[in-house]
Amino acid sequence: MAQRKGNLMGVRADVKVLDATIRDGGLCNKFRFTDEFVTELYKTNIKSGVDYMEFGYKASRDLFNEADFGKWKFCKEEDIRSVVGDNISDMKIAVMADVGRCDYKTDFLPRSESVIDMVRVACYIHQIPAAVEMIEYLHNLGYETTCNIMAVSQANTNQLEEALAMLCDSSVDVIYLVDSYGSLYPENASDLAKTYLAAAEQSGKQVGFHGHNNQNLAFANTIETLSYGVSYLDATAQGMGRGAGNCAMELLLGFLKNPKYNLYSLLTFIEKYMLPLKASGVVWGYDLQYMFTGQLNRHPREAMTFTAENRSDYCEFYKSLLDNF
Amino acid sequence: MAQRKGNLMGVRADVKVLDATIRDGGLCNKFRFTDEFVTELYKTNIKSGVDYMEFGYKASRDLFNEADFGKWKFCKEEDIRSVVGDNISDMKIAVMADVGRCDYKTDFLPRSESVIDMVRVACYIHQIPAAVEMIEYLHNLGYETTCNIMAVSQANTNQLEEALAMLCDSSVDVIYLVDSYGSLYPENASDLAKTYLAAAEQSGKQVGFHGHNNQNLAFANTIETLSYGVSYLDATAQGMGRGAGNCAMELLLGFLKNPKYNLYSLLTFIEKYMLPLKASGVVWGYDLQYMFTGQLNRHPREAMTFTAENRSDYCEFYKSLLDNF
Repeated sequence: MAQRKGNLMGVRADVKVLDATIRDGGLCNKFRFTDEFVTELYKTNIKSGVDYMEFGYKASRDLFNEADFGKWKFCKEEDIRSVVGDNISDMKIAVMADVGRCDYKTDFLPRSESVIDMVRVACYIHQIPAAVEMIEYLHNLGYETTCNIMAVSQANTNQLEEALAMLCDSSVDVIYLVDSYGSLYPENASDLAKTYLAAAEQSGKQVGFHGHNNQNLAFANTIETLSYGVSYLDATAQGMGRGAGNCAMELLLGFLKNPKYNLYSLLTFIEKYMLPLKASGVVWGYDLQYMFTGQLNRHPREAMTFTAENRSDYCEFYKSLLDNF
Repeated sequence: MAQRKGNLMGVRADVKVLDATIRDGGLCNKFRFTDEFVTELYKTNIKSGVDYMEFGYKASRDLFNEADFGKWKFCKEEDIRSVVGDNISDMKIAVMADVGRCDYKTDFLPRSESVIDMVRVACYIHQIPAAVEMIEYLHNLGYETTCNIMAVSQANTNQLEEALAMLCDSSVDVIYLVDSYGSLYPENASDLAKTYLAAAEQSGKQVGFHGHNNQNLAFANTIETLSYGVSYLDATAQGMGRGAGNCAMELLLGFLKNPKYNLYSLLTFIEKYMLPLKASGVVWGYDLQYMFTGQLNRHPREAMTFTAENRSDYCEFYKSLLDNF
């Protein structure tokens, strides 16, 4: 049984906090954030000691119509630069690119010409070969890369071991454990993290965790997997993210003992920008419909529809989920 | 390092689920539940497989004015019987009595004449001698007893070891780890649970856990301490309880694998009774002000006032907490 690394009082130098508010939160409002919101969040993250800020997706403009989304679905170089200039801060800039839903061979500059530092390659477990091809291409352009294996709670052990072996043979820097359905508990999230860490440590790679809050466990799973050696921690302001949302940055910054992390700057942003965003009708966060899909270990799409339709007939909804198992 | 007991797939025969909705939730509405609410919750708990239902406090009618509270602050025998009759169900009936705020020598019948099965004695750690005196008295009346040591996150290790030794020498049946301030993380909640369990196992006693949701960890801490051997688990419908509330019963019932536990009955109750209760203006649950007091390991009283005053100036409030540390 793997031991915990560090303890609740100490600082772990390997820890990196990534703010995914615009990217995962953008799934709640089609990436339609005001320029002021994004600029203030950028400044806030720098003040709060956040290590990486994810600006959104590099989605294919062939597959997706630009008019249907805010600009952070596409993260053009000039749009990021309009916020960060040359990003003279210590905080690094990340974007996400989905396997099969981006044009990575045309849409990425060499890193030396870009303000982007890291590309996070998201895929399902059967797409690992395609992910590795993307990772090698982006690595050769000079980027830090991660591979975010989504929906891992539905993968079987053999698949996962093979996927991890392929990634450990690749140039990827960080392998992410992603609880897309919010169905993991601290106990099995930690067991999975130990599997990732055992593979990663042999090949000098880091492991990250990205949680969802369907069972109110996003923060708990983040700090539990952290305690066993996970280093890259995703969080968002007020947990803003698809469906039940993610690990709340304010919980995470309040937990971490490294004095570089500063909660108060984030509180100012929350009060000034997040509360009005919620009041404007953008919806995310824990609710029963997401608890159901988390408990049943399935995609939250029906729960998102239930939310969008302003329904509160939880019993009928729960029965319909059991009917469609 | 203590191992986990059982696993995520199995059933642990020692587990007992206690519904504390009327008792801890009553702190949100001065125990003013309708008779219909309490009666339907009683039926729901039986259908859901809940092992104990806590009806409220046995508070002193000298110290507290009956007109200021609903009847579940006092839990008179006839009031409980008006709901449960002779309680012919398998579910047991519990009440809580606070050390120093009850008249236990006059207000308890012998168990053979009462419908109450268990008395939970709540105290702070410096009140253990008084708690033990109460426990022995109530044990001699025939009741099952627990000792709920509140605010344990502020006790030091020596105090705690002495308290546990005194309780292990007493007639108490269950010793509760109570995270009154919602300041524990799964890691230190589990370490504390192991300390309780090591003491309790030598003397044939059980250990319980009662969480608060200040850092969104009430459920996580409940199932983590469970995994190391805690047996008695407190939860409430929709987490209703003082301040940030408690572990949500629906999360717990969805987690436990014993087929005796039934989520659907509870959902029906939530839809019919809890949603209207919330809509009527009774307030509880996770919010930033409670996160602050949890992170700072202190009583939520200022956060409760902040809530009662409908404030949303979180930054000012946070600064005021730091000023009064």
